[in-house]
Amino acid sequence: MPIILQNMPGDNLKGKTFIEKRIPITSWLPKYNTEDLVADIIAGVTVGLTVMPQALAYAALAGLEPQYGLYSSFLGCFVYTVFGSCKDITIGPTALMSLMTYQQVYNRNQDYAVLLCFLSGCLMVLMAVLRLGVLVEFISQPVTVGFTTATSVIIVVSQIKGLLGLSFTSEGFLPTLMKIVENIHETKFWDTTLGLVCIAILLLLRKVKDLVVVDKRSPKQKRVIAKCLWLLSTSRNALVVVVCSFISFVLHNNNNGSVPYKLTGAVRSGIPAVQLPPFSTTIGNETVGFFDMVSGLGSSIILVPIIAVLGNVAIAKAFASGGSVDATQELLTLAGCNLLGSFVSSMPVTGSFSRSAVNHASGVRTPMGGVYTGVLLLLALGVLTPYFYYIPKASLAAVIICAVIFMIEYEVIKPMWKASRKDLVPMFTTFSVCLLIGVELGILIGVATNIALLLIYAARPDIYIEKSQENNGTEYTRVKPSSSIHFPGVEHFRTAVLQAAETHLPVVIDCTFMQTTDFTTAKSISVLLNEFYKRHQALFFYNVKPSLAAVLSPICTKHFVIISNNDELARALQDVHKNGISDEITQVSTELTDLTHRKRNQNGSELEEKCEEPLLTYCIKGTIVPGNPSI
Amino acid sequence: MPIILQNMPGDNLKGKTFIEKRIPITSWLPKYNTEDLVADIIAGVTVGLTVMPQALAYAALAGLEPQYGLYSSFLGCFVYTVFGSCKDITIGPTALMSLMTYQQVYNRNQDYAVLLCFLSGCLMVLMAVLRLGVLVEFISQPVTVGFTTATSVIIVVSQIKGLLGLSFTSEGFLPTLMKIVENIHETKFWDTTLGLVCIAILLLLRKVKDLVVVDKRSPKQKRVIAKCLWLLSTSRNALVVVVCSFISFVLHNNNNGSVPYKLTGAVRSGIPAVQLPPFSTTIGNETVGFFDMVSGLGSSIILVPIIAVLGNVAIAKAFASGGSVDATQELLTLAGCNLLGSFVSSMPVTGSFSRSAVNHASGVRTPMGGVYTGVLLLLALGVLTPYFYYIPKASLAAVIICAVIFMIEYEVIKPMWKASRKDLVPMFTTFSVCLLIGVELGILIGVATNIALLLIYAARPDIYIEKSQENNGTEYTRVKPSSSIHFPGVEHFRTAVLQAAETHLPVVIDCTFMQTTDFTTAKSISVLLNEFYKRHQALFFYNVKPSLAAVLSPICTKHFVIISNNDELARALQDVHKNGISDEITQVSTELTDLTHRKRNQNGSELEEKCEEPLLTYCIKGTIVPGNPSI
Repeated sequence: MPIILQNMPGDNLKGKTFIEKRIPITSWLPKYNTEDLVADIIAGVTVGLTVMPQALAYAALAGLEPQYGLYSSFLGCFVYTVFGSCKDITIGPTALMSLMTYQQVYNRNQDYAVLLCFLSGCLMVLMAVLRLGVLVEFISQPVTVGFTTATSVIIVVSQIKGLLGLSFTSEGFLPTLMKIVENIHETKFWDTTLGLVCIAILLLLRKVKDLVVVDKRSPKQKRVIAKCLWLLSTSRNALVVVVCSFISFVLHNNNNGSVPYKLTGAVRSGIPAVQLPPFSTTIGNETVGFFDMVSGLGSSIILVPIIAVLGNVAIAKAFASGGSVDATQELLTLAGCNLLGSFVSSMPVTGSFSRSAVNHASGVRTPMGGVYTGVLLLLALGVLTPYFYYIPKASLAAVIICAVIFMIEYEVIKPMWKASRKDLVPMFTTFSVCLLIGVELGILIGVATNIALLLIYAARPDIYIEKSQENNGTEYTRVKPSSSIHFPGVEHFRTAVLQAAETHLPVVIDCTFMQTTDFTTAKSISVLLNEFYKRHQALFFYNVKPSLAAVLSPICTKHFVIISNNDELARALQDVHKNGISDEITQVSTELTDLTHRKRNQNGSELEEKCEEPLLTYCIKGTIVPGNPSI
Repeated sequence: MPIILQNMPGDNLKGKTFIEKRIPITSWLPKYNTEDLVADIIAGVTVGLTVMPQALAYAALAGLEPQYGLYSSFLGCFVYTVFGSCKDITIGPTALMSLMTYQQVYNRNQDYAVLLCFLSGCLMVLMAVLRLGVLVEFISQPVTVGFTTATSVIIVVSQIKGLLGLSFTSEGFLPTLMKIVENIHETKFWDTTLGLVCIAILLLLRKVKDLVVVDKRSPKQKRVIAKCLWLLSTSRNALVVVVCSFISFVLHNNNNGSVPYKLTGAVRSGIPAVQLPPFSTTIGNETVGFFDMVSGLGSSIILVPIIAVLGNVAIAKAFASGGSVDATQELLTLAGCNLLGSFVSSMPVTGSFSRSAVNHASGVRTPMGGVYTGVLLLLALGVLTPYFYYIPKASLAAVIICAVIFMIEYEVIKPMWKASRKDLVPMFTTFSVCLLIGVELGILIGVATNIALLLIYAARPDIYIEKSQENNGTEYTRVKPSSSIHFPGVEHFRTAVLQAAETHLPVVIDCTFMQTTDFTTAKSISVLLNEFYKRHQALFFYNVKPSLAAVLSPICTKHFVIISNNDELARALQDVHKNGISDEITQVSTELTDLTHRKRNQNGSELEEKCEEPLLTYCIKGTIVPGNPSI
């Protein structure tokens, strides 16, 4: 039995109950076993060790005190375990969210970040209710590539400051780049050395896991070595940070509290207080009310959640090999993470690609891995924070730089050039605007450019025109649009039909590829029908689908003749050749939709026929107008 | 021989030389004869008599001194005669242009109007050069209807002030309406009476031409009467204004210069000086430079020319019954009218629907009619201006109200409801936003809404899924999208394919209705191919057009199997059933485009085949993977 996917909402996937779909933990927890537990604990702890230094670095990137990175990291893990649909995803602060938060926190305070987190959650709920998960679908691959690449470049540039030990404040890619050039002579030797050494070690450790290749037939010893190298490679971020911090700790204690490079500094200890998100704040001596804060946050209230969802769905897609991603469920889960997170002073969070990859590579089996990561983070907040003081800023910069440089996707250009050159336009547009003006505007303009390209395609479908001959020898001109015509394409279609009319033969519009249309097109066709009638030239419509006829028939009430097969066409052309064109309406049923439905139910398997056979057949009746129609 | 209209520029219409196309007067002037002369003079003078009161009223509507209406009227007539492609169109100030100008002149001075005219001309030239005439095509019928209707309502409300003799300043629909309600108690008796009487007479005279119906067999006497009534009806605007002015003149001279109602007041006499458009101006005591003026004009610099072109092309379309409208030529002509007009203190001008209708109804034969209208207007500027003083404001208001109320298109709603309900959304959106917020924003939001609807259609094409059987008994699931898939539809398409995959049968994507695609879709299909391969389920592509294969093949480099007819499908399914799926690439030629071209040239008339037959055929080769593909 055929199914027609028509405006199918995202969540009517079969085989799961509503509860299982909306609270996925109910479907997998009952089957949870010891093997899962072990695998999840290993993965969860590995991810936790990656999160810690990243969280501190992302907090710095967002212009917040380091502890905010940790505050933002743990709650999402728990929430996602319960509601998330993809076992690999780890929710927390990301480079992009930090960057977007930074633009709101800059020259203000952390309350803006937490409020932004809360409002993002609210907007995600709204988006889920309004089924706006579909918005994510308008962000194409080229825009995503342009955006991630630009973001990677921006992050690398923003981290150069920490890497070189420079001190300045700046916002945006170009100003930061200029400040770096201006301040380059103040480069600190020890920061730079430490940073570059860290980068070298990180890149080396990244490759180390590929040194020993094993398969099922490898000796056990070799497999143990491979496993150790893999562990070394996976924990490289934590390793570098721990070692550097230890060196700093030793130097600090032996040198009366001075080290030759910059340290992270005090991280406030303890689990954050559970409190309402800040609905007002104080900047300098001024109290800023809720509405002023909201208007200060501006468009980021809309863009942060959209980009968060985009990122999360993109990651979910990447890991859901084979399965489908329920955008609405991901939206709701992310909404929960942000809403609840804002009660523990979190900044906006979303799925992190790098940590999810670590999670996946560490062999996670269920979303329960998140719980172990979360517990580890809470422990760290309670116990480890005093030691975070000693983390060198240059090491954190190195960790971030080494994570994002592999997000720069230059290798996509070649296949894109080969397959679909016009897709390079939105990609480079997004990339340039993100870099030169801003990330948010970059996405908006990128999407707009891509839509414009799509519409230009809609405005200029290929239209085939050819002189043709029926079996009985009557000639006609056939006009065949290669897709449905909508208002942007009307003028193009009209030009084609009028060009076909210059042959002075009957014109037959072949509607095989036209599924439906709109009022503007119907109106234009009705004008064409009148014009052809005035010129005593026949204009027929061939192979009209019910969905198309339903729109055309109420508007084209005069001279509208539908032909359903070649025999009828031959007969109609013969008729016109002999008697001239009719001025009567072809009867068009108003119960078109009903008929379609009936037909569908009667014989479900006749798809081919249902798709291509028009419902209405050729019929000329009424008075005959004398005269040669071919004039 | 078939012609393919592919991204056809608007101006490659055949049969005319470049000169004839760009300077149309060269094609008709050589054939100009006495009969044409007489017809054109009658029409030209009638239009002239309609223009004069309208011009004064529109100047008032734009917040300018009355003479500016006349300054704006005459030059366009001459320019259009030389460059215009439609004999009926009369260029000059219109209600809409006045309204948009008013928003710029309000609280400033007339220099802004003239500069806006100049800049509009410049932008039109730029639009023509960039081939942006295509932008007009994105303004659909529903948006046009919503916009003209809202504009008509706004104009009527703006004229009530003059009709009732009220005095206040206001901007926008709602504020004006509120001011009217506030000031309603100050309604002047004589203004109101005069206005209402004028309206009654105008509506009566409008109907008078339908009193006597004649045909070719009517007696001559009846035909003369009919002609007189038609003349009376057509010249009703001029008539009402002249009679009212004469009454005012008599009252004024007999009452020591006082009349019981408001008069137009002094109209500066004389032909305007030919001078550069104002590139700086003085408001109060402050000098405003060019850039400040430009930034003051803001978005109207873009919107005024777009809307002017839209209006003009719409009118040209309405009168070009049968012929096609060359948007680029109309754009260039309008650019000339505005550019040159700005040197004689004109405000932005475009084709006037009401006057063009009068021109058409008066039997104009060539664009030369414009010259006679222009000459009459120049005479009026030189000689008649002193008498314009006596035109009652209420009469002018009545003339405008009676012209625009018939532009309110409520009768379009019913067919739109029947044919294409979703088109009501952009219509009412445009109408509401125009009325409540502003005309410019109304058009922009209306167009955006309409595009959004179009994209939602693009994101959710119907996709047919059915279980099918080949002749040899092998079962498969067929997925048939009803149109090309582009990035907004990828998720929908993917969901459909995965749903089809749940049958555990080989899945065949029927690409009959897919013309082309983009990088995002190709990428997603390549992921699908990998996923199906991993599941040991076959995924075939049936009836793939070269244009589609050209985009898919560089991306889908693995497991991509194309099937071209039912025999091959049967063979492939049998193969898969027996041997499982292949893991080799189907060879896809990189010379796809060349092949297509060669094919097209070889046998041009085989349209049907070229359109539907795929270039590549099914081929499974390489290693065979064991296992039941149907798992």
